[in-house]
Amino acid sequence: MTSPVLPSHGRVRPLGLAQVSITGGFWGSRQAVNATATLAHCEEWMERLGWLANFDRVADGTTGPDRPGWCFSDSEVYKLLEALAWETARTGDQEAEAAIKRLTVRIGRAQDPDGYLNTCYGHGEQPPRYSDLEGGHELYNIGHLLQAAVARLRTHGEDELVRIARRAADHVCRTFGPDGMPGICGHPEIEVGLAEFGRAVGEDRYVEQARLFLDRRGHGTLKDIPLGRAYFQDDIPIREAEVWRGHAVRALYLTAAAVDVAVERGDDELLRAVERQWERSVARRTYITGGMGSRHQDEGFGEDWELPPDRAYCETCAGVASIMVSWRLHLATGDVRYTDLIERTLYNVIATSPSPDGRAFFYANPLHQRTPGRPVDPDEVSPRAEAGVRAAWFDVSCCPTNVARTLAGLNGYLATTDDDGLRIHQYAPSALRAELPDGRRVAVDVETDYPASGTVRVRIAADASEPWTLALRVPAWAAGATLTEDGRTRPVEPGMAEVRGAFRAGEVITLDLPMEPRFTWPDPRIDAVRGCVAVERGPEVLCVESHDLPDADGLDALAVDARSVPPAEPGGARVRARLRDPADRPWAYGPGAAALARDAEWFDVPLRPYHSWAHRGPSRMRVWLPVSPPPEGE
Amino acid sequence: MTSPVLPSHGRVRPLGLAQVSITGGFWGSRQAVNATATLAHCEEWMERLGWLANFDRVADGTTGPDRPGWCFSDSEVYKLLEALAWETARTGDQEAEAAIKRLTVRIGRAQDPDGYLNTCYGHGEQPPRYSDLEGGHELYNIGHLLQAAVARLRTHGEDELVRIARRAADHVCRTFGPDGMPGICGHPEIEVGLAEFGRAVGEDRYVEQARLFLDRRGHGTLKDIPLGRAYFQDDIPIREAEVWRGHAVRALYLTAAAVDVAVERGDDELLRAVERQWERSVARRTYITGGMGSRHQDEGFGEDWELPPDRAYCETCAGVASIMVSWRLHLATGDVRYTDLIERTLYNVIATSPSPDGRAFFYANPLHQRTPGRPVDPDEVSPRAEAGVRAAWFDVSCCPTNVARTLAGLNGYLATTDDDGLRIHQYAPSALRAELPDGRRVAVDVETDYPASGTVRVRIAADASEPWTLALRVPAWAAGATLTEDGRTRPVEPGMAEVRGAFRAGEVITLDLPMEPRFTWPDPRIDAVRGCVAVERGPEVLCVESHDLPDADGLDALAVDARSVPPAEPGGARVRARLRDPADRPWAYGPGAAALARDAEWFDVPLRPYHSWAHRGPSRMRVWLPVSPPPEGE
Repeated sequence: MTSPVLPSHGRVRPLGLAQVSITGGFWGSRQAVNATATLAHCEEWMERLGWLANFDRVADGTTGPDRPGWCFSDSEVYKLLEALAWETARTGDQEAEAAIKRLTVRIGRAQDPDGYLNTCYGHGEQPPRYSDLEGGHELYNIGHLLQAAVARLRTHGEDELVRIARRAADHVCRTFGPDGMPGICGHPEIEVGLAEFGRAVGEDRYVEQARLFLDRRGHGTLKDIPLGRAYFQDDIPIREAEVWRGHAVRALYLTAAAVDVAVERGDDELLRAVERQWERSVARRTYITGGMGSRHQDEGFGEDWELPPDRAYCETCAGVASIMVSWRLHLATGDVRYTDLIERTLYNVIATSPSPDGRAFFYANPLHQRTPGRPVDPDEVSPRAEAGVRAAWFDVSCCPTNVARTLAGLNGYLATTDDDGLRIHQYAPSALRAELPDGRRVAVDVETDYPASGTVRVRIAADASEPWTLALRVPAWAAGATLTEDGRTRPVEPGMAEVRGAFRAGEVITLDLPMEPRFTWPDPRIDAVRGCVAVERGPEVLCVESHDLPDADGLDALAVDARSVPPAEPGGARVRARLRDPADRPWAYGPGAAALARDAEWFDVPLRPYHSWAHRGPSRMRVWLPVSPPPEGE
Repeated sequence: MTSPVLPSHGRVRPLGLAQVSITGGFWGSRQAVNATATLAHCEEWMERLGWLANFDRVADGTTGPDRPGWCFSDSEVYKLLEALAWETARTGDQEAEAAIKRLTVRIGRAQDPDGYLNTCYGHGEQPPRYSDLEGGHELYNIGHLLQAAVARLRTHGEDELVRIARRAADHVCRTFGPDGMPGICGHPEIEVGLAEFGRAVGEDRYVEQARLFLDRRGHGTLKDIPLGRAYFQDDIPIREAEVWRGHAVRALYLTAAAVDVAVERGDDELLRAVERQWERSVARRTYITGGMGSRHQDEGFGEDWELPPDRAYCETCAGVASIMVSWRLHLATGDVRYTDLIERTLYNVIATSPSPDGRAFFYANPLHQRTPGRPVDPDEVSPRAEAGVRAAWFDVSCCPTNVARTLAGLNGYLATTDDDGLRIHQYAPSALRAELPDGRRVAVDVETDYPASGTVRVRIAADASEPWTLALRVPAWAAGATLTEDGRTRPVEPGMAEVRGAFRAGEVITLDLPMEPRFTWPDPRIDAVRGCVAVERGPEVLCVESHDLPDADGLDALAVDARSVPPAEPGGARVRARLRDPADRPWAYGPGAAALARDAEWFDVPLRPYHSWAHRGPSRMRVWLPVSPPPEGE
């Protein structure tokens, strides 16, 4: 089946890409931009910077000391290949098919006879293979190659890319197997690649190698580094860890693989360990946007409650990786909390990164921008991950291809089936066709302009011979949701709202989610946003931008009235606010509590979706808004 | 005169080390520990790690690829030499004198015939001289050699160390002079070293070379780096900059040199530029402790109002450098705001770093420790600057020797003279003897146990033939201070309290500073501490440690009553507090504002000086305390 993740068993099963089409709307337009702009954009940049030519130079024996790109640049090519493969399945796009063939040839020529494949190590005067497991990313690159090959195999069938990947995987198993080097890669990814490749080709030994890598980790297997071994999760065995820590993308790729291995091995202890880590990390180390990674220094999780909005790193790739983890946990358990978090992350991290034209990206996704970013030249590589503006390409350019593969494969994350029916988790105008284990076929068309409105109409597209269950996710924030069936409307609680019947074609079941803007308060232990409130609307976190204030400096002085519900605005909301008038004192600390000009006039400030911030040019922005007067109960 | 900084002119003149002795008290005991433990500790570590042997290897032509230490390890030897030199003047310590001689011999043997002196570049298979101005620190090292030589020259007179330094300085002037390489060093320090060396030996050409380095900076003279050229202040010429930015120690060493050059050149425009930068940086980018540097990633200043307590970097060395800047500005202008900030930084950054035994140090000085540090082995080098515990030595070990040289030379920062008398800025039990420009001699003994109490008795130690003015600094926080003279007590305002008279030996002038603990509120634009209050007592910032709470987790739940003055405790204060009872929810954000258990019992929490935190073992700690109920005016 055409799906990024296909566990051999689980509480629910994903629908494949061939069973889902997104026909427009919020995500359909983003998929279209991804297809028509981002995919070519990524290939062009990698050609221009010589990251593709790196493969040619290895093939031609002309590697030199001046190799362009970081040691993980190969992985960007593989992530692009994965995106292209999902795209061919989504649309049958011939340009994507041609790109896959063209890239595969160049990659294949660079592979060594024993299967080793890397453009930065092991050729000419390059450092020897596996001479820097901590930083070299060789296995990481292969992990992404394997994910690309999985996508190719599931969307097209065996071809040269799949054979290249198999040779590389076999090389990894020989080199790092039980009798080989006892090493692991500083950046997890090989594990999740091997596990899915093993499932895709039906060979358990690849899953077993993933298990071996997982179990080797956490024992100080890698050398210590100044940031400490927690940086690459080699501090604590994954079964014993209580929380995610260190580099967020590393932690999350590793965890995704742990779910895969736990499921394939029936290892409930490992699955429970991962669920525990998810629970604490989501409860205490995750931003309201779903963003993860509080620290710039190590691109890492901070400690519990360390969630500064201004220095939030919230790497786009960590959002991708978080979805990978939650989706796997959902497939294993059927728990709706995981698809809730996926929705939050999709709307507030993934959708935030790309520009409307699909040719520029946010790398970091802070929740408070103190000074507007400086406009960047679309022809230049951004050296910085934290510019406050979307950049065409980065020195470390992991995010564009990660967004591309996520959007191209997004259809696979919309719905699942269980033994009795269809379960819809993400709402988009779409057509869903599935077959249940006992052969019953279900077919629905979803009609909605969600999240513009909260009305989701599920139209039965084929008569059922027997009853089946339609289950619709009611997000945790959607208190007051209703379900209308057969002209009868009833309230539904957050969770899965289920309807069972022998549905007839044309029948419509309607879910109405409350889309009034709402104030959201932080746990008092999140010190960095004490005394502040956020505004959310449906799945979208909203923000204030300096574009919408009479004076850009007003963003520092803003104090909002949180005593009544914020009224809706088209696509957003507004709040009543007034400006503090802090005196500029020579010293920022003094005997008087913060003064507020009591006679300051109230005015209305519009809020817009966080994912659209800086679309109108560089701006100052904040999600968390200081409140005045303070809330009751403080 | 025996003083670290001797401008050729200025509003006030420093007293030399020979004119001041600190006879005990808060700083006297720290100077004693520095002398008896820290100086030898530093030399032992550098011997053990081979940082000293690096000099021998250059001399013997046996440099190899395995050179221990970073490229700036030479500077630690020079900073230790500077500390030893001040120590010889302070106490006539023969061990310090012997150490100077022994180190000087080893350093001198490593100097090339043309004056170049570096153990990491330019010998054997090392990279060539000045092949990495951005990161190589060659000129930085020489800057510290020059400061050591200044100390030696002023405490002992010309000797081999001074001659070594002169040869090195001449080499620098030849190599980087107007007709030489147009480069600058990625880490400023050569500038302040050259300027003071020029003043010490009376040769203006060294000051001129410092000016040349200063004026070359800020034009993109160095290569760009991922952190951007602001990291090493090569983004904006110093005359045009509005605020300090980038790496804090770099920014501050550079600024210290700018004051020196401005004074020597009568360049009021440059002096005013630096004062402007000081004003904005102190008002908006400085912690209540005086600490500077909000970011770990680049050890740098953040943006205006970006002052997170938990991720405060506040490097000890930035505290040292801040004092260097403020002292120079004070000598130039006589403005008491600079010595106010010096006091704050001395008590809350410098005093915080060393352990009571002088053999372990804080590198970073956060204002909130979320999890207790892990105890460190006193025989191991700490790879991390942010451990939450004091470490014996660091991989990058700039702070121990910087503390050592500051404490050894501290006598030089206590007092100044102007044309009419003596001005005392820092209060310690001490004897001060000075000669005014017209030959009048003034002599006082200061009796105080400040900051344990606020009573400072200045006892005239010699009959005056003519009237003179005694000026005593009244800190900005000391509203309600009084001065008693001749049995008459009068209120004195923050600033300088002056008394003029033909004083007779034995007369006592008493300054009484109010030492009641006080609540201090942050500017509302400092988002990270909104809704919090700090407690200060005299010059000391206080903190709560988990040691003093019934439950260590209570530090997350603490809410203090800020409606009445916090009562004093011996050496500290206490506050009334209660614990919030935040429910552990699966998601940290929700519709209800932070709940507070309204029936929670009030209890007393002791606060102790921040500088003593973690003296009783690893702890959780916070300076900024959440307030409940919220303050009036919010």
